[in-house]
Amino acid sequence: ESMEVAAAKPILRVAAVCGSLRRASYNRGLLRAAAEVCEESVPGMRVEHVDISALPLLNTDLETPDGGFPPAVEAFRDRIASADCFLFGSPEYNYSIATPLKNALDWASRGNNCWADKPAAIVSAGGGFGGGRSQYHLRQVGVFLDLHFINKPELFVQAFQQPPKFDNDGNLIDAEIRERIKKVLLSLQAFTLRVQKD
Amino acid sequence: ESMEVAAAKPILRVAAVCGSLRRASYNRGLLRAAAEVCEESVPGMRVEHVDISALPLLNTDLETPDGGFPPAVEAFRDRIASADCFLFGSPEYNYSIATPLKNALDWASRGNNCWADKPAAIVSAGGGFGGGRSQYHLRQVGVFLDLHFINKPELFVQAFQQPPKFDNDGNLIDAEIRERIKKVLLSLQAFTLRVQKD
Amino acid sequence: ESMEVAAAKPILRVAAVCGSLRRASYNRGLLRAAAEVCEESVPGMRVEHVDISALPLLNTDLETPDGGFPPAVEAFRDRIASADCFLFGSPEYNYSIATPLKNALDWASRGNNCWADKPAAIVSAGGGFGGGRSQYHLRQVGVFLDLHFINKPELFVQAFQQPPKFDNDGNLIDAEIRERIKKVLLSLQAFTLRVQKD
Amino acid sequence: ESMEVAAAKPILRVAAVCGSLRRASYNRGLLRAAAEVCEESVPGMRVEHVDISALPLLNTDLETPDGGFPPAVEAFRDRIASADCFLFGSPEYNYSIATPLKNALDWASRGNNCWADKPAAIVSAGGGFGGGRSQYHLRQVGVFLDLHFINKPELFVQAFQQPPKFDNDGNLIDAEIRERIKKVLLSLQAFTLRVQKD
Repeated sequence: ESMEVAAAKPILRVAAVCGSLRRASYNRGLLRAAAEVCEESVPGMRVEHVDISALPLLNTDLETPDGGFPPAVEAFRDRIASADCFLFGSPEYNYSIATPLKNALDWASRGNNCWADKPAAIVSAGGGFGGGRSQYHLRQVGVFLDLHFINKPELFVQAFQQPPKFDNDGNLIDAEIRERIKKVLLSLQAFTLRVQKD
Repeated sequence: ESMEVAAAKPILRVAAVCGSLRRASYNRGLLRAAAEVCEESVPGMRVEHVDISALPLLNTDLETPDGGFPPAVEAFRDRIASADCFLFGSPEYNYSIATPLKNALDWASRGNNCWADKPAAIVSAGGGFGGGRSQYHLRQVGVFLDLHFINKPELFVQAFQQPPKFDNDGNLIDAEIRERIKKVLLSLQAFTLRVQKD
Repeated sequence: ESMEVAAAKPILRVAAVCGSLRRASYNRGLLRAAAEVCEESVPGMRVEHVDISALPLLNTDLETPDGGFPPAVEAFRDRIASADCFLFGSPEYNYSIATPLKNALDWASRGNNCWADKPAAIVSAGGGFGGGRSQYHLRQVGVFLDLHFINKPELFVQAFQQPPKFDNDGNLIDAEIRERIKKVLLSLQAFTLRVQKD
Repeated sequence: ESMEVAAAKPILRVAAVCGSLRRASYNRGLLRAAAEVCEESVPGMRVEHVDISALPLLNTDLETPDGGFPPAVEAFRDRIASADCFLFGSPEYNYSIATPLKNALDWASRGNNCWADKPAAIVSAGGGFGGGRSQYHLRQVGVFLDLHFINKPELFVQAFQQPPKFDNDGNLIDAEIRERIKKVLLSLQAFTLRVQKD
């Protein structure tokens, strides 16, 4: 392949969004691990964390009459709109999507839907089903947002089983899960390349 | 019935929680109508609106080390804990539960779950399915919260069909829907009386 | 309590319906264990298995013009209509309700809905979430059927984890799960007594 | 484009599967209309109805020890395996997927999953949400089956609203819905061409 052709194939940019605001969130730990794994072993793709902690709680009365958004919302929407695909770290809270993640999904969907027609994958950590119930609600949200979720592999991390999967700061310390994250990334990359319009 | 017996049967207190923070919310309009209908024609029950606009976006780092909550959260939790049952005004946003409602559900579930073992009903207004998709996600949340939802009647108001159902301030102006709200309240009352422990 | 009063309180009859037709089904094994546990240690309740293997695949053209059903369907409907509450053994197949169970649910809902206004509980065994995804779809079906599902405890048996939970004939051989089945039965009993109309 | 290149681009084959066995099924009517609309106005694609009425009720004990299936199942699986994508006519029954459709989905998923990695779309007709609740359960099934559902447009036909949408034989007689079916087909075609591996 010539250098010109290589240059014509830009790196896929994955916007990583964590649904928990907690500092030591396991789900953010999964996304940090994904960024590292991607850099180490998935050429052609880069995982970039997008912070959602500054977003106000959704209230459409905060929009300006001409459809403008609060500055923190505008900044977030720009990050989403410029990504090629998405990786969600999706905690399960009360058997559904975590509130901060739903808040972020909603803000970037207002007006021109920033998520539209892009591929996405989900990782989650939690008790019981490892965050699984949140993933199926998130997939239903994705129908309206027009997200194209990969089907396989799914990743549910049972965070409270022995041996420990995370350290006290929420860093992933389990090699097997790291390997499974890599497979999620490879699947997301392959599906994004298939789905992207020429 | 003697006064003593009547005194022993307190009025059922329904905490009404609206999932939208928008001033002219149709879903809040449904709850206002429910409060009126209840006062007019459902003896033995009272609908009391519980405001959720002051709640911060969920972040468990905001809890104190001894399990305390920010003042606005404490006040909200007290209102929920003292209710006999619940009526949710549940807008559908992006095919799931509105963020402010999920936020309220989450805050009152932390520590001692304030929703536990109490009956509930849902009304919703929206386009398409009239908020219906939010209701089924809310019911799944209710499994963990240990809410006992009534099954029938369900109420989905298609807010954008002619003739108009609400005025510009979000007040319900449709007599047939008002009648259906009454049936929801009667069902909630009957189920609450069945389910309440002696 | 006088003998007259005791006589007035009949034994609760639980119709147990297994969603798999497979001979050595783990989910049927859970229901067999439930019947044994109930007889041993839950006074006032009896679990009776209701076979669904003779039901034809749902086709409303099989109903007679006057609303009659094929004989196997009639017999099944009678069993459901005469129960006080239900215990479902609900395998997960392709992330939803097993076909034979949905078939049974549908047949007994036609015409006069035989499930209406009765409490129910679910147990399931499977890989991954232990049948969990089927349980939430089943709960949604229950909204229309007007079933009152208990919320807690839920029981998801991860059938393929070590040590073995079932023998080759699908008999439960795990004492801890047997104890958890007992808790499901006690919760179903308590909720049925609360919900039953006087 | 030269004739050689045109010849190299085969017609997309859509397997249409109707979830109801009822003779005058509205959902089968939608699929018949889809086949006509496709022939008339969607070049490059053909809708072929796949009958599921001969499938036995799922019971894995019917499989032979070497993984073989009953003849009717084998024939059905061949039809599914040879299609490029799928169009489901998905009635809602008791708030979930119709039993005959779930039966078909299950049989073709056994052993080598015949649905894997192919695009799909759903149309449905019914009361209330026009079959909508079945569609979201079907989408969850699709995660395990590895179906790639289009997100938009969705089609929910409220079959019992005036003016009539179907004649007594279940034939679609509504021009606007016919036009919306065409849009579903065009979206399915476009997504299939994007997703198909080279």
